[in-house]
Amino acid sequence: MKVNNQHYRTIYFDNGKVRTINQNALPFEFKWFISNSYKETCKAIQTMIVRGAGAIGAAAGYAMAQAACEAPADNYYHFLEMARYNIENTRPTARNLFFSTEKVFNEALKGKLYAIAEAERLADENSEEGRLIGEYGNNLIKDRMNIETHCNAGWLAFVDYGSALAPIYNAWDKDKKIFVYVDETRPRLQGGRLTAWELFNQGIPHAILPDNAGASLMAQGKIDMIIVGADRIAANGDVANKIGTLEKAITANYYNIPFYVAAPCSTIDFNTKTGKDIIIEQRDADEVKSLNGIDQKGNLHTVTVNNPLSDCINPAFDITPAKLITSIITNKGIVDPNENSIISLFQ
Amino acid sequence: MKVNNQHYRTIYFDNGKVRTINQNALPFEFKWFISNSYKETCKAIQTMIVRGAGAIGAAAGYAMAQAACEAPADNYYHFLEMARYNIENTRPTARNLFFSTEKVFNEALKGKLYAIAEAERLADENSEEGRLIGEYGNNLIKDRMNIETHCNAGWLAFVDYGSALAPIYNAWDKDKKIFVYVDETRPRLQGGRLTAWELFNQGIPHAILPDNAGASLMAQGKIDMIIVGADRIAANGDVANKIGTLEKAITANYYNIPFYVAAPCSTIDFNTKTGKDIIIEQRDADEVKSLNGIDQKGNLHTVTVNNPLSDCINPAFDITPAKLITSIITNKGIVDPNENSIISLFQ
Repeated sequence: MKVNNQHYRTIYFDNGKVRTINQNALPFEFKWFISNSYKETCKAIQTMIVRGAGAIGAAAGYAMAQAACEAPADNYYHFLEMARYNIENTRPTARNLFFSTEKVFNEALKGKLYAIAEAERLADENSEEGRLIGEYGNNLIKDRMNIETHCNAGWLAFVDYGSALAPIYNAWDKDKKIFVYVDETRPRLQGGRLTAWELFNQGIPHAILPDNAGASLMAQGKIDMIIVGADRIAANGDVANKIGTLEKAITANYYNIPFYVAAPCSTIDFNTKTGKDIIIEQRDADEVKSLNGIDQKGNLHTVTVNNPLSDCINPAFDITPAKLITSIITNKGIVDPNENSIISLFQ
Repeated sequence: MKVNNQHYRTIYFDNGKVRTINQNALPFEFKWFISNSYKETCKAIQTMIVRGAGAIGAAAGYAMAQAACEAPADNYYHFLEMARYNIENTRPTARNLFFSTEKVFNEALKGKLYAIAEAERLADENSEEGRLIGEYGNNLIKDRMNIETHCNAGWLAFVDYGSALAPIYNAWDKDKKIFVYVDETRPRLQGGRLTAWELFNQGIPHAILPDNAGASLMAQGKIDMIIVGADRIAANGDVANKIGTLEKAITANYYNIPFYVAAPCSTIDFNTKTGKDIIIEQRDADEVKSLNGIDQKGNLHTVTVNNPLSDCINPAFDITPAKLITSIITNKGIVDPNENSIISLFQ
């Protein structure tokens, strides 16, 4: 996608280094993080320099490839095993991470060039999947629709295009006059910071809303559809996604507003039977207590915004049951959220 | 209620001046704002130095009394009329404001001492109402319950005790072991800043959660009941309250969790037939875009936290339909949210 009219991918591999847009610096500064080793890439995933299901998947693949380059010849297999363990322990929820480490690990057993080729193939695949999700999802969007989205499942969350935002970009490219309501998505504000920044750069009309305002807009008939991404989709169609997704799904259901989940097929995990089997990452209380931002002079400050002496809880994801989801938009087509329909994607 | 073991009311009248806890400075600094004129009190309401339905009501009454003291003898009536107009135009949603201006205006026609006495009576009444809401509401709270609350409807929002928090304080005083989940309540964080600060000062176990995390906790069975306040209650039981209340009500309804609204009878407005007749205040986009807080050295900064170049929408309240409310806890007892039950409170 484009920033200042130049095309970028979110993450790419460059001669042993992983280059990724530093998402923690956005929307205040557009800059790149360069990781020189698989461990630095792990750190980038953990600290959310690179975040979003698809981008984490690509980063994990590249990290495995870096590990293959770094592994000593006399300890190659064990080094790879340890690296895979470390990469898989950065963040537990996104299916795409484990999908990538497995694929690249298996190729790496043949040699580092195979690992790099596989990581590159996965990144290309990720980009193409986003494009296809956009093509399919666009069919659901009518001219002049108002679309709500949660968190960031845009091109920053993938290698390109995104998942939830891909149909929006596709519809916009086809001259549909749409408006996007962006949940700011506390605690880390990925909606207000990243999705809003993406949409602004693409010139798509939008407004940021406090997460609390969703139901109010729906009650007033101002939302025609909701599209969100997914970090993991269970075999039965239950979806793990950014905290707050469940609340939007329940609210949309109450007002009979279509609620779509958009994700590449690599997000589907048949080993996870239902949402109950998905591990939910609990993140640090400080993410709720503090925020960073820029003052009027452009200086960055981290400030405590809630009562400093209180505890905070910070679950990163929640589970939306399949029954609250209208359809799942994938790179292989749009399906109902149930096991038979999901299996049909792989046949 | 107590701060550092000393008892305070949120707002009081002192020889023509209105003294109110500066709620914009909390939780970082506990300090008083002193208003020397009715116009300064208007400003304090508008800028939310004093906020919360009951505290706004008391402030509006005191402002009318200040106006009666300031009014020139040769233009007394018109000055009062103009003052009432100005006070009533500070914030449109809280019923209590209009309740107070009307009462104190009518007494002021007899003279300024009558106005002061009426404003004092209203403040005392407000405090006593909070105490009674606590007594009634406590009957709904069982030992070891986990209670979620939204925004701040505590003693800071009233002259004392509060509405939504009054039953919690009462239950705690009666040695019930409760835990309070506090929605941080974006955009202004009245939950994370004020409710959390109140609960901390009273020593009641609690945790702040991102507004997005409510449904997730409910799905896990971690919430036994929800209590919120109200800015205005329509004749049919529809409730205007802080933005996000509607979403919690829908979510609680989905999980069959009791959803209570606590408010004094002065919050009920029979001139408002249903929630559709309630004017919803739209506040400045900057409240969503920026936040203030303290850095590690204790210095206060206002920082932009969302994409600076995007629009933001900021409705201050939403309307929860009566059918989503389990009961309304008032100073005259607990009633069902329907017109007949509500009328019975006044018989």
